[in-house]
Amino acid sequence: MPNALPIQAVLQHLDDTSETRVTELQEFLRIPSVSAVSSHHNDCRTAAQWVHDQLTACGFATETVETDGLPVIYAEWLKAEGAPTALVYGHYDVQPPDPLDEWTTPPFEPTIRDGCLYARGATDDKGQLFTHIKSVAAWLKATGELPINVKFVIEGEEEVGSNNLETFLETQKDRLACDIAVISDTAQYGDGIPAITYGLRGILAVEVTLHGPKQDLHSGVFGGAVTNPVNALAKMLGTLIDDNGRIQVPGFYDDVIPLTNEEREAFAALPFNEQKFCQSLGIDAVAGEAGYTTLERRWARPTCDINGLYGGYQGEGPKTIVPAKATAKITCRLVPGQDPHKLTQALEQFLRDQCPPGIRLKFTDFHGAPAVLCDTSSPYMAAARLALETGFGQAPVMIREGGSIPVVGSFKQILGVDTLLLGWGRNTDNLHGPNEHFHLEDFHHGTLASAQLWAALGS
Amino acid sequence: MPNALPIQAVLQHLDDTSETRVTELQEFLRIPSVSAVSSHHNDCRTAAQWVHDQLTACGFATETVETDGLPVIYAEWLKAEGAPTALVYGHYDVQPPDPLDEWTTPPFEPTIRDGCLYARGATDDKGQLFTHIKSVAAWLKATGELPINVKFVIEGEEEVGSNNLETFLETQKDRLACDIAVISDTAQYGDGIPAITYGLRGILAVEVTLHGPKQDLHSGVFGGAVTNPVNALAKMLGTLIDDNGRIQVPGFYDDVIPLTNEEREAFAALPFNEQKFCQSLGIDAVAGEAGYTTLERRWARPTCDINGLYGGYQGEGPKTIVPAKATAKITCRLVPGQDPHKLTQALEQFLRDQCPPGIRLKFTDFHGAPAVLCDTSSPYMAAARLALETGFGQAPVMIREGGSIPVVGSFKQILGVDTLLLGWGRNTDNLHGPNEHFHLEDFHHGTLASAQLWAALGS
Repeated sequence: MPNALPIQAVLQHLDDTSETRVTELQEFLRIPSVSAVSSHHNDCRTAAQWVHDQLTACGFATETVETDGLPVIYAEWLKAEGAPTALVYGHYDVQPPDPLDEWTTPPFEPTIRDGCLYARGATDDKGQLFTHIKSVAAWLKATGELPINVKFVIEGEEEVGSNNLETFLETQKDRLACDIAVISDTAQYGDGIPAITYGLRGILAVEVTLHGPKQDLHSGVFGGAVTNPVNALAKMLGTLIDDNGRIQVPGFYDDVIPLTNEEREAFAALPFNEQKFCQSLGIDAVAGEAGYTTLERRWARPTCDINGLYGGYQGEGPKTIVPAKATAKITCRLVPGQDPHKLTQALEQFLRDQCPPGIRLKFTDFHGAPAVLCDTSSPYMAAARLALETGFGQAPVMIREGGSIPVVGSFKQILGVDTLLLGWGRNTDNLHGPNEHFHLEDFHHGTLASAQLWAALGS
Repeated sequence: MPNALPIQAVLQHLDDTSETRVTELQEFLRIPSVSAVSSHHNDCRTAAQWVHDQLTACGFATETVETDGLPVIYAEWLKAEGAPTALVYGHYDVQPPDPLDEWTTPPFEPTIRDGCLYARGATDDKGQLFTHIKSVAAWLKATGELPINVKFVIEGEEEVGSNNLETFLETQKDRLACDIAVISDTAQYGDGIPAITYGLRGILAVEVTLHGPKQDLHSGVFGGAVTNPVNALAKMLGTLIDDNGRIQVPGFYDDVIPLTNEEREAFAALPFNEQKFCQSLGIDAVAGEAGYTTLERRWARPTCDINGLYGGYQGEGPKTIVPAKATAKITCRLVPGQDPHKLTQALEQFLRDQCPPGIRLKFTDFHGAPAVLCDTSSPYMAAARLALETGFGQAPVMIREGGSIPVVGSFKQILGVDTLLLGWGRNTDNLHGPNEHFHLEDFHHGTLASAQLWAALGS
């Protein structure tokens, strides 16, 4: 089997160089590329340049493409004549690290403890993205070529809604032509259970501020005679979800494509220990929409979560004021069929309809993206199954995920391709929370799987 | 009329020294004596010492009495044999200055603009308190004596619930014996309409925190399957007040002593321009309990105001998390008949009854005090009427106020005396908000009224 030789050499090379890769990843994680905070935008550009340099060093033709926001790194290696083309997407930006005081070691000082690398972005998405950079590097180093053509699109605004990516994809559409997209920004199903994700939830993200009196008022002198914007906001937000966990925005469920019986059975067959799940989160019980299991609630039912709420005094002790204003940040996770734009409008209307006298409502639409469902019977999916089996030593399960990767929808719409969602990390890696980490074994297995993927897609 | 001579000399002296008094008050206001913030407790002690020095300089026997918290300044001048004794109460602590960015000039850099002195505490209560110190100083300077005996009790924890004052009053009960208490910590009815306040609302102050998952979670991975503590808190707080402005805590109105028809008529006869009221607050409409006027809502109906609410992300842009916890600070203004302790328990129970699965509720009782109603037909009230007419050149109206001065209840209960609530400031002075100020003419008129009060009470 002469074809078996190159991949063996590549996997051997990856085994031999795993320690160096961890050191390189730490360098990447040290850059505080928080896209949500404008004072960190220079750091985002440093991270972009770091990715550029890595891909150039591999032997890829690399370009930093400016957008109206943060740049996209585009790179290509197209010497596998007649072979298919894969497009790898990832993002070099990370979530804000707050709350800072809950990190055991600082978020931007990557630290290894108990076989894990702790840092903001360790899993989401710097660590996972890096596996693909290092797998193509290994192919080129060990064999001088890749079994297929590979393109990279690495953006810097994923955590703030990828506002400039769609324009990038549309203007660069011809150059980005490919047969399949590959993204590692999801997770394994569980420890030692690798997974391919065939469905994702969509999202809408908004902010609402209620302005009451022009400044904070004495609650004794004025309380009872003016609308308190904090009370008003609580009252509004309190009506969003009923006691059965059903979202009350009119029309919210109208377009939902329900889960099939086959999917519900497949989800139910997956190992899931609810007690352990609760324990890992530090809660005494799960909760959510009546009539659905925990996996169904997480993967395939829409949500309405207040991500941040603030108004009035937050210091020590009491303060007797009627606050001048109050703000809530809200995201809804959406499922196949739901239209983010339509539901953002419905949510705004739902809130405006409840706005009481003496209050001015300001509504901000941050971004939105529809949910995704991929074809599970394609040859690309078969190649991905083989890759995961090689990398992790076990056949993957087919799952959905609750997170949102809007670009998957854009790839389908603009480039006409499906996406392989191959997650190397774990849900317990604390992505978006304090003490985010990446298991070093997952980092290594993911890199091996990525290397195998190029071979499988090429054969 | 030989009795007229001493007061004339005192009033003349006060007219001659008004500029110096403003400079001295600025010195007092420069001390950031914020009792709610423990890092400011040394500043509170500096303010206490400043009061101590002022009273000593007047010729009063002064003592700094330590408590379990911040000290009380006690001072006395008891040489008016056979004359009645008045006890002046005030506080040298101030509210926190937040939100700092809304102050035109810094809160602890007292600045004169357009006839007003701007600073945190300018009216509440340093400026008003200082009128009484300077009126006794003027009597002693101009005539060598006071027409009555005067005691001062100046505490430093009024803005955080006067937790140690009751113990002080009880242990010093004999020394504090008096015929009438005097407090200037209320307001005039309106510009040029001096007032005597015969009723005050009580208060209860609490904090509630909902703890959900042990840390912030990714809203895509976990959203929909765990109770979001911010959503849960909004839902709870949203049920506190119904669409008619009625508080829904069971039993909340059970013990309320309703306004008499005479009081409602007297309130209705007071000049009140609702449009101007709204304009001054920057709102387009008043709101509150159905069936009551704005004055009734402010002075004689209970409230439930959220003073502060916070949970999750507060930075720029969106952040897709399920927050770990959420906190609300709540105060209820209470009216005659309502028991703060009983209602604090009822509020806690009301919230606990709604606590959903997956949430741990922590409840903190900050403090409470019942409402007050004073006898409007006493000779002390008559003396106060004369004092205000002298100081402000106009007969005062009889009003209630919406604020809470818990010590008035303690004076009645422990010392057996009524309190004269003589407010020199205005409701538009922004007490507790940014840009708090004191009209210099009110400062002067209040000092004259105080000087006249000692004569009137002595005759």
